[in-house]
Amino acid sequence: MSRDLTLALRLRDEALSDTLAYEITEGIGTEIGPRLAGTEAEARARTWAVAKLTALGFPEVRVEPFTVPLWVRGAEQAEIVTPFPQPLIITALGNSGATLPEGLTAEVFACANVATLEAATVDQIRGKIVFVSHGMVPTRDGSGYGQNRAVRGHAPTLASLKGAAAILIRSLGTNPHRHPHTGIQSFKDGAQPIPAAALSIADAEQLQRILQRGQPVRVHLVLTPRDLGTGPSGNVIAEIPGTDPAAGVVLVAGHLDSWDLSTGSVDNAAGCAIVASAALRVAQAGPHRRTIRVVWFGSEEIGLLGGFEYIRVHGAEKHAMIAESDMGADRIWRFDSKSPASAQPAIQRIATALASLGIEPGPTDDASGSDIGPLSERGVSTIELCQDATRYFDLHHTADDTLDKVDLKQLQQNVAAWTAMLAILANAPEELATPVAMSTDS
Amino acid sequence: MSRDLTLALRLRDEALSDTLAYEITEGIGTEIGPRLAGTEAEARARTWAVAKLTALGFPEVRVEPFTVPLWVRGAEQAEIVTPFPQPLIITALGNSGATLPEGLTAEVFACANVATLEAATVDQIRGKIVFVSHGMVPTRDGSGYGQNRAVRGHAPTLASLKGAAAILIRSLGTNPHRHPHTGIQSFKDGAQPIPAAALSIADAEQLQRILQRGQPVRVHLVLTPRDLGTGPSGNVIAEIPGTDPAAGVVLVAGHLDSWDLSTGSVDNAAGCAIVASAALRVAQAGPHRRTIRVVWFGSEEIGLLGGFEYIRVHGAEKHAMIAESDMGADRIWRFDSKSPASAQPAIQRIATALASLGIEPGPTDDASGSDIGPLSERGVSTIELCQDATRYFDLHHTADDTLDKVDLKQLQQNVAAWTAMLAILANAPEELATPVAMSTDS
Repeated sequence: MSRDLTLALRLRDEALSDTLAYEITEGIGTEIGPRLAGTEAEARARTWAVAKLTALGFPEVRVEPFTVPLWVRGAEQAEIVTPFPQPLIITALGNSGATLPEGLTAEVFACANVATLEAATVDQIRGKIVFVSHGMVPTRDGSGYGQNRAVRGHAPTLASLKGAAAILIRSLGTNPHRHPHTGIQSFKDGAQPIPAAALSIADAEQLQRILQRGQPVRVHLVLTPRDLGTGPSGNVIAEIPGTDPAAGVVLVAGHLDSWDLSTGSVDNAAGCAIVASAALRVAQAGPHRRTIRVVWFGSEEIGLLGGFEYIRVHGAEKHAMIAESDMGADRIWRFDSKSPASAQPAIQRIATALASLGIEPGPTDDASGSDIGPLSERGVSTIELCQDATRYFDLHHTADDTLDKVDLKQLQQNVAAWTAMLAILANAPEELATPVAMSTDS
Repeated sequence: MSRDLTLALRLRDEALSDTLAYEITEGIGTEIGPRLAGTEAEARARTWAVAKLTALGFPEVRVEPFTVPLWVRGAEQAEIVTPFPQPLIITALGNSGATLPEGLTAEVFACANVATLEAATVDQIRGKIVFVSHGMVPTRDGSGYGQNRAVRGHAPTLASLKGAAAILIRSLGTNPHRHPHTGIQSFKDGAQPIPAAALSIADAEQLQRILQRGQPVRVHLVLTPRDLGTGPSGNVIAEIPGTDPAAGVVLVAGHLDSWDLSTGSVDNAAGCAIVASAALRVAQAGPHRRTIRVVWFGSEEIGLLGGFEYIRVHGAEKHAMIAESDMGADRIWRFDSKSPASAQPAIQRIATALASLGIEPGPTDDASGSDIGPLSERGVSTIELCQDATRYFDLHHTADDTLDKVDLKQLQQNVAAWTAMLAILANAPEELATPVAMSTDS
């Protein structure tokens, strides 16, 4: 058995009783709480992160600062005025426009999905509150999110361009509780910002039932988010140098920012914690060939801004492999990768090391990640340790993403998998990197 | 087999495909929504109820009005100011006092339970925000609620009497979501109203973790509920006369009011729906001996006020048996009763009729209910069809008590059980009533 695999198996089994990842997850959520990109809370999170990673023994910890747009939530209230007066629970989508403080009242125009909205005429929509009721179902691979993302990302622009007064969407999520899901969207194609919010799924279903009674439905809406210009953000980077600088960097990542509604324990304190704990385990096992770079990205939630900043600064460096943990804290079930032929023996050893954790081999020509997505799209070798996403979109971008949703045993399985993978990536004798044409300005 | 048992078995099996109870539950929640006691919404619910019960064919439907105190929720916000600034999700308890509009900021004084609060001195508590962290665990019989009720019912008074600025309790509930549980409490023993709110369980655990860091914790609190004097309430009564007025009335009940945070689909639209559907099934089977009286009580949530009003008006009448459905919409698992020796053969037949629904025989000397509790305490014969309460206190008094939490199959099992029971109670040849000394002024 090759030396890196032997090491991987030993470290993997030790990591199954890891407590550090839980400690970091608990610490970020408890001592910082919500940490929206560009806010003072995100800045506190960076300070906390530098102190923590330094205390844990990472030899080089730094912040790479950048500036981001700052949009903050205000009041958010909705209620059916007629025919059946009652409140609805909503939350503004990122970059939502605002109503006047006293709100607006308008009739609801219901669309079953984005296609219905696309087909609707300006006359039908002008002055109305558009309601898009299209939902998603839970899946292990999280594919429901991507498939339905246009409900959040595109429908507000469409509604604005057709003259809607506001838009309400059924939350892009799968939980039956009254926790609406926020998330980023941008008004494109010259669309003016309009108030844009998500209804909790229970509220969306209630509105549908009321609409099905066949009477005109009028809703009163108050949304007073504000654009505050810009705010500071930054990527926190903890590096453990390898013995062979020419072998390239192994980048493992999570993101430190969260939405403002919760402590972001699952999205993505857990991801930061998993990769840091794994990196530390490999570092503590002795000298390794490749530099391990742990990045806790800033401003992921508002458009992968930390990832783009990383490319600007580090895009020309040689990355042997990149990987990000950002699909919650539940167990890893599949191992995907995208790397050159020269890396396949190492990929095979990783598959071997992961098998006993219940992780199936997945595609070897397709892998990505959130903040690392843009870098991965340039052809950089990428690994994706796919977490079970069945439960993820119950919590994602809601107030309900709290520490009690993190299951210690599943978190430990994650740490074990990342540790095993990283032991091999950090030491593999093969060339892992794709010979890609790097550019800092594309 | 006696005639009433034969009828009970037939109607029971038909009721397993009942759709009316779901229709009523859906209708109340959709067409009315939240319906706090004393509000215009509760009045709309009574109008809806009279129209619906009349349309269903109940021959005599009426409202018995009364007046209740009217307390309404205002703004509710909380946030940790130091050491780790972050918001907390709270909801005011009934009869909470108010802060000024700008709120108050004070240090938290943590108590593990009501006994700790009782033992604390005025010097320790004066000017502080008391936090009681005692929780409850889910149980099938719902006993955790009664055992821990003092956290909500008594701690606010204790805190006020010791000079606290405000009180926060861990919600009296069992769900892991960020849905705090409201509920009634009254300031007693001369205690002045202070702001009193429940933290969601996730938020209570977060506050505990922060307190465990050992630094003083200061919280900013805004609660602006208002006492609006009084408002109208009423009991909705639908009666189906029996052929033998001297045999006494069989009273089956639910309550029509709900807390203001949700549609109250489980608490207690479902209870109203179950008993009405069962009563209609028995009535439609032909003439029956005893008058069946369906009561949808008003103002249960704010102190069983409909129940007390019922006693005032009807306490002197002969009640053969009373029963209420008010522990959610999940399956019935046990059958308790309290009735004279003369009724035992009928009780035995009911047990026989319920067995195939998976309902165990329970005590025959102990049974009660919510609105009917005061009447039951006077010795009136009582039956309790115990619902599985494991899930009930996840939803109880939260925003999360919505239609999607009602499981059709379990609801149908309830209707089947109530129908079978009512077929026997309405027709049993035995004397069911306890010879109690009735009084309208005790």
